[in-house]
Amino acid sequence: MNEPDFIAALRSLPLHAGARGLMDDCAVLPLGSETLVITHDMMAEGTHFRADADMADVAWKLVATNLSDLAAKGAEPVGVLVGYMMGRDDARFIKGLHEALEAFGTPLLGGDTVAGAGPRAHGLTAIGRATHTPVPARSGAYPGDHVYLTGPVGRAMLGFEGVMEHRIAFDRPAPRLAEGQALAPYVTAMMDVSDGLLLDSFRIAEASGATLALDLEQIPVADPARAGQCLRWGDDYELLFTAPPSAILPVAAHRIGTVTPRADAPLTLGGELLGDPASLGYRHG
Amino acid sequence: MNEPDFIAALRSLPLHAGARGLMDDCAVLPLGSETLVITHDMMAEGTHFRADADMADVAWKLVATNLSDLAAKGAEPVGVLVGYMMGRDDARFIKGLHEALEAFGTPLLGGDTVAGAGPRAHGLTAIGRATHTPVPARSGAYPGDHVYLTGPVGRAMLGFEGVMEHRIAFDRPAPRLAEGQALAPYVTAMMDVSDGLLLDSFRIAEASGATLALDLEQIPVADPARAGQCLRWGDDYELLFTAPPSAILPVAAHRIGTVTPRADAPLTLGGELLGDPASLGYRHG
Repeated sequence: MNEPDFIAALRSLPLHAGARGLMDDCAVLPLGSETLVITHDMMAEGTHFRADADMADVAWKLVATNLSDLAAKGAEPVGVLVGYMMGRDDARFIKGLHEALEAFGTPLLGGDTVAGAGPRAHGLTAIGRATHTPVPARSGAYPGDHVYLTGPVGRAMLGFEGVMEHRIAFDRPAPRLAEGQALAPYVTAMMDVSDGLLLDSFRIAEASGATLALDLEQIPVADPARAGQCLRWGDDYELLFTAPPSAILPVAAHRIGTVTPRADAPLTLGGELLGDPASLGYRHG
Repeated sequence: MNEPDFIAALRSLPLHAGARGLMDDCAVLPLGSETLVITHDMMAEGTHFRADADMADVAWKLVATNLSDLAAKGAEPVGVLVGYMMGRDDARFIKGLHEALEAFGTPLLGGDTVAGAGPRAHGLTAIGRATHTPVPARSGAYPGDHVYLTGPVGRAMLGFEGVMEHRIAFDRPAPRLAEGQALAPYVTAMMDVSDGLLLDSFRIAEASGATLALDLEQIPVADPARAGQCLRWGDDYELLFTAPPSAILPVAAHRIGTVTPRADAPLTLGGELLGDPASLGYRHG
């Protein structure tokens, strides 16, 4: 079974209404007077981090990537549960976990450890509470809305390649928690750019039944000479969102396009149709 | 680093008050008008299941063991998030997951998958809502309380060994959800017997600062000829709890002992002191 087939099979199981059909980054769970936002993301050696990665960075990214999903929902983190496979450099993992929890003001709620052998994978569940309802989804982009991005893409790519000033963007990304909470009341759709700007734009367009017309000239990229790659690399964790033209945004953001009625493709870039998600970014299921 | 050291290091991190010092099976999180109960347990090949195990049974047990932690809190399951490493027999895993979710009336909330190689580990986060507050803990056993067990121990051991009538107890354990919810208002301490009756009794005694005096003759075991092993094997998922002598219990349970003020050891069995947890059951961290 490959991962897309497995995920399709998961979607056929009895789903909670708050699972949003497993088409969104988080589950959204109204509970009494509050609304919970919950996500669980894993990182696997070989896929998400190199076998020689500093385990402190791995722990940091495990926290940061999950909190980034909460950020895209305008949620405030409540706590995390960690699932850890024991192996090399466990003390470094603890150190990075400690640093991330402190940096993001998020306490540990629980977790579990197991013995590991061979390539390891680690999971994290992040629990947050919505600061605004309805909780932003991928699916609300509406024709006429503007498309925005909170910051440049491509920094994580350059950091991965060893460019010193961008190393931190790859090793220690920061979830845009304050921005997500400030923006939640204004956006029609929002997600974090984890798998590449083009692919994630495609996903918003698909979920919304609209087309996102992106203006290449307006997209901030870390290296203009390699714009195509910057648009396709992930791991930057900027927020991508749509909002009505009348919205006065509380956060500085780059306007990078416009939502139109569904055209021949869900995504256009400088007028060019981009219909095949396989060419748009990083897909790891 | 070994697992006890790693868990000790986790306890030194910024903890949520609801994490109960990582000394309990679940986190307990008051949220608005509700109280959430959250747990994350993993199962690893080689430790928790054999390399040739039916992945449908593995999926079932992953759900059941986490829901059993909710049962011990008197919590009603809301949903689960699964963290799955891809590998052999993925379709069997889906099948077992489906069967468990249906059997326990618990929908899927979300999850993640990653590519796996070598021995795999899978995680599950179960979210529940408390049906009674204060939520039962391990720590409330009080001198004079009676000690109870909802059913026999040792069935999973016999099932593991291949005794046909007990296979289901090992392969497809059932969390005592209804019993836990019914008992929650009456108990002073409660937990599920996952790591062996003696070890889990020791844990309640330690958490409560009391001694549990167990009466060997009164403990229901699946094979009286091997009582010592039945008391030390885990995986039965019966509920172990303490309640005042005056409590009129809504669920049939075996009275197996009495709580006394802390004596020379946290646990006695037929009058014999049992002070060394290493001899009491299954410890996998």
